Amino acid sequence: VLITSGPTRQYVDPVRFLSNESSGRMGQALAEAVVSRGLDAVVVSGPVSLAYPREAQVIAITTTDDLLAACMEQFPRCDALIAAAAPCDFRPEKVADQKISKSGRGLTLQLVETPDVLAALAAVKGGRPVMGFALETEQGRQRAALKLKQKNCDFIVLNSPQSLNQPATEVEVIDRSGEVVATFSGSKGSVARALVGLLLP
Amino acid sequence: VLITSGPTRQYVDPVRFLSNESSGRMGQALAEAVVSRGLDAVVVSGPVSLAYPREAQVIAITTTDDLLAACMEQFPRCDALIAAAAPCDFRPEKVADQKISKSGRGLTLQLVETPDVLAALAAVKGGRPVMGFALETEQGRQRAALKLKQKNCDFIVLNSPQSLNQPATEVEVIDRSGEVVATFSGSKGSVARALVGLLLP
Repeated sequence: VLITSGPTRQYVDPVRFLSNESSGRMGQALAEAVVSRGLDAVVVSGPVSLAYPREAQVIAITTTDDLLAACMEQFPRCDALIAAAAPCDFRPEKVADQKISKSGRGLTLQLVETPDVLAALAAVKGGRPVMGFALETEQGRQRAALKLKQKNCDFIVLNSPQSLNQPATEVEVIDRSGEVVATFSGSKGSVARALVGLLLP
Repeated sequence: VLITSGPTRQYVDPVRFLSNESSGRMGQALAEAVVSRGLDAVVVSGPVSLAYPREAQVIAITTTDDLLAACMEQFPRCDALIAAAAPCDFRPEKVADQKISKSGRGLTLQLVETPDVLAALAAVKGGRPVMGFALETEQGRQRAALKLKQKNCDFIVLNSPQSLNQPATEVEVIDRSGEVVATFSGSKGSVARALVGLLLP
């Protein structure tokens, strides 16, 4: 099972970057749930400060492009995908060679969109089950259902920013019908086991 | 001794932020060096995933404005300052209420400069010794010497991006003469003890 986990980073200059609060905790819990089912886990993870299960193969990446490249390499030998990473959706158009100094005039950062990793993987999924995650701060269900369709997922897990970097979470799972088919809440461990059970019955 | 440590974060929307690679390791080593000298350490720290010595008082902050406010509150009761934090120098002019969605057109982020925490503290230092840090990717000594003067520090410690989030480091220390008065390299623990020894002989 291929699992993506954690944030990505998009550098502005050699020391500054754009990122998000994803901690990799859900990815860690998912890897543990997969491994505890006796399945092999391949985790492609952005920079996190936690440990994945030692039974998992872990591939460390930094940017969204790295994430896509590593996943494209691993997905052919996997039977399912759980995309729990929070890749940066935007990156600076230019990365400065040197640290940008204060000038007294502020700074305009032109951002461009990064590739959609989940959509790119699900486009080549064939019959393999794919579970994506959506983090929304408004119109959660509508947007999640739309993402599921646009990205060709079998399930999309809707969570909220309140669960980022927290031990517990509460999620709604939407399937291809566009309906909420399950709601799980509790520790990320128990929620992860329920999600893996849903994807790989 | 007041010690600032770690990065700050400046949010773009509820989940995305600008930050940098500072891990708080040098601040942790400095706090340990201060405590091991039998002195009290007050650590004002951005988001990090490491533990400061339990003898230290730790104040957790997120943004550069938070860092400044917490330090301004603590500095009056301290006898020295070591500013090892890497505060964000820029913040988005506006923070979006809701997560910004991809539109297919990219995004322009207008950034404004954040307050200079080290300069603000050193301006009211009186006779208290102040050590700042400078991370430069080019013209390091010149820029560090200029920063020392502009910011009214007694010492400025010049380090390079290669030392960020690493166990070891190599630094040059510049004093008010503008000259390199010491070079320390080794574990951050040994370098921190040498820096504390220089500031508080």
